Amino acid sequence: MFKAAKRFYSSIEIPKNKLKYIPTSGTYPKGFKVGCYASGVKKNGAPDLALIYSAESCNAAGVFTTNKFKAAPVIVDKEILELKQNKDFHSIVINSGCANAVTGRGGLEDAKDIINYVDKTLTGETFPISKTLTMSTGVIGQRLNVEKIKAGIDNIVHELGSDHEHWLNCAKGIMTTDTFPKLISRSFTHNGVTYSISGLVKGAGMICPNMATLLGLIITDAPIEAKTLNTMLKQSVDKSFNCISVDGDMSTNDTILALSNGQSGGDVITEQSGEIYEIFEKQFKEIAIQLAQLVVRDGEGATKFITINVKNAKNDEEAKKAANSISNSALVKTAMFGKDANWGRILCAIGYANVDVDTTKTNVSFIPADDSEELKLLVNGEPQPVDEERASEILEFEDLQIEVDLGVPGDGKCQFWTCDLSHDYVTINGDYRS
Amino acid sequence: MFKAAKRFYSSIEIPKNKLKYIPTSGTYPKGFKVGCYASGVKKNGAPDLALIYSAESCNAAGVFTTNKFKAAPVIVDKEILELKQNKDFHSIVINSGCANAVTGRGGLEDAKDIINYVDKTLTGETFPISKTLTMSTGVIGQRLNVEKIKAGIDNIVHELGSDHEHWLNCAKGIMTTDTFPKLISRSFTHNGVTYSISGLVKGAGMICPNMATLLGLIITDAPIEAKTLNTMLKQSVDKSFNCISVDGDMSTNDTILALSNGQSGGDVITEQSGEIYEIFEKQFKEIAIQLAQLVVRDGEGATKFITINVKNAKNDEEAKKAANSISNSALVKTAMFGKDANWGRILCAIGYANVDVDTTKTNVSFIPADDSEELKLLVNGEPQPVDEERASEILEFEDLQIEVDLGVPGDGKCQFWTCDLSHDYVTINGDYRS
Repeated sequence: MFKAAKRFYSSIEIPKNKLKYIPTSGTYPKGFKVGCYASGVKKNGAPDLALIYSAESCNAAGVFTTNKFKAAPVIVDKEILELKQNKDFHSIVINSGCANAVTGRGGLEDAKDIINYVDKTLTGETFPISKTLTMSTGVIGQRLNVEKIKAGIDNIVHELGSDHEHWLNCAKGIMTTDTFPKLISRSFTHNGVTYSISGLVKGAGMICPNMATLLGLIITDAPIEAKTLNTMLKQSVDKSFNCISVDGDMSTNDTILALSNGQSGGDVITEQSGEIYEIFEKQFKEIAIQLAQLVVRDGEGATKFITINVKNAKNDEEAKKAANSISNSALVKTAMFGKDANWGRILCAIGYANVDVDTTKTNVSFIPADDSEELKLLVNGEPQPVDEERASEILEFEDLQIEVDLGVPGDGKCQFWTCDLSHDYVTINGDYRS
Repeated sequence: MFKAAKRFYSSIEIPKNKLKYIPTSGTYPKGFKVGCYASGVKKNGAPDLALIYSAESCNAAGVFTTNKFKAAPVIVDKEILELKQNKDFHSIVINSGCANAVTGRGGLEDAKDIINYVDKTLTGETFPISKTLTMSTGVIGQRLNVEKIKAGIDNIVHELGSDHEHWLNCAKGIMTTDTFPKLISRSFTHNGVTYSISGLVKGAGMICPNMATLLGLIITDAPIEAKTLNTMLKQSVDKSFNCISVDGDMSTNDTILALSNGQSGGDVITEQSGEIYEIFEKQFKEIAIQLAQLVVRDGEGATKFITINVKNAKNDEEAKKAANSISNSALVKTAMFGKDANWGRILCAIGYANVDVDTTKTNVSFIPADDSEELKLLVNGEPQPVDEERASEILEFEDLQIEVDLGVPGDGKCQFWTCDLSHDYVTINGDYRS
């Protein structure tokens, strides 16, 4: 009855309206080889294994889900990043199709087995502590087929390369219900040194602040000091992946990893490096924000891309709580899907967000995507007579900006991104495993 | 394209599978007259005004939304209940179709205007503090059409009565997107005195713990002391209306009111009354639970009725948090709609509920609705090989029970009720106002 496109493990054609988000070329960090392979974990034969490799030793950093049922790869990565103080890594292996989550002791063994196997395959030896990090995404509660993945690793090392197609394939290899591969790259030159950063991400469902079944990778050839990379990643995630929501579920597997191998040349970058630190940190954060936005663009069943700006909150944290509450409201999301300017639901979601709000000074407006005049919905707590025709015009656009002023002393603000809740979301998630 | 039944203000036919929840007779509290009227606030001509009246003075109690944008009737009721210390009321007027929420100062004036008008119409006079409580439900941010409602009040007083049809009509008058009227009644005799209690509720969307666009009424002829009625209502709501979830949104208007007029005869019931207090309190709480369950049965688009039992939590509060998190997970709800035993999503929702959980001692099972053997999904944190055919059988039933053992020292437990998330939910809420 419901003809919504089914999103089973990236086997479907890429929707025409998403093609514009897929780059046709890029400049990628030096010294990395990447690729993907179809190991057979995904039953439909789509790519389900990706590898990122640098012969030169990398610094690495990770930000992980706070879900108490952490998947095996999350537990393993956290442990080895700490043991090695973010230094001396050479690769990341990612499998899609099976999350290796809630798989008990066996699942932990599987994850360790795989990273050691990658080390062995890449260098001919294993190490006391592995130089490989790992990520998994897919169904929870099923054991990995380690034999298939090992056979895949044997093959993927012959598929690695450093050109655009290889990076795009790598982005394809990490997809689950994503409809398009998400890849971003940029380069900039400072004092004669050219630095490159690339980002890959998969998302689609279970997307919630504090991350999601969201696997993200930020890869750079800049010589970032290990501790600095760690801090930079955490701060960037806080303003990007932690400011998006698709459905409010926070997964067992959420992970963002960063690698830097220093192959750009130039001095080591630390927080004390002045101008280059500032420039690099800005570029890095922008990549994180762009990746997070792509996840929302491809939210399961999403037809709308909604930016929520909250200001005049008690503090930034409360601004984020308000934005999050609006973003996760099923009623707001279905209204947006229905192109219905039912702003009462926005107010309602603010009202139960458990934040300070002055109900006599609250303002809510829609900012249209075509830069035409804003539509004031609530001014100082008083509802405005809404021109429904104008509201409909604004809601016809894919993009919408919602401005919320909580009217509270304090300078708290937050920018947040979310999508609507559609029939397709229900179809996709009603039989994900089928 | 989507043929889901639209639920616009109870104009549709009652679905056949819901007819069993509508009583065909009842025993109602003595001394109350009730009824409904179509005042024209609902454009489709469905009943949109209800009145409950007792010539004998009533004690009254209320439990209200904690949303910061409280609707005008909520603010007014809270104020007068406090001023009058829960005593000396004679009626409750309810309108559906317009929530009188986020309507500024004008909305407060409207609510007061209406309750004074009810007093005047019923008794020929107004009072320094009104003897009428009020409730509104419907679209947020629009002013009430007070003239239509006043004309409705002029008419409704001639429609009042005390038989089953009148009570059922009253339940119809408070519906919004509900598909069937929700009415319950029961009587019991103790020491020669017959006590009657009846309950009415409307729900459907915006249903979340700590209530919802949920208007509930519990009416009794027992002589309950005012303070005791207040405590009894709060405690009952905590185990009923605060233990259900449809979509996680908490509305601006949620209200449960209770009235007792003492017309049963017998001694005044207080917390010190011993046996009769125990018996009455149990009956009262059961009514509240039955009403709350009816709301879940009629959750917008719901096809499943799911009972969640959480045990071995740190305390009752944490058990409720875990149950709530499972209930509000869009991924759990869509899996249930899809009859998919994707228990990993249940685990995932527990994992981000921010409660103590021993991941090595967690157990999750499905209890089938036909009393056949339970299906163990997770035992001591280890996933069980699941017989998918058996799981499908269990998920074919409308009713399902999910047992969760958090494996933590402490005796915390909670029973919670929720429904699935279906295409109909999206359809209903995508153009609610149209």
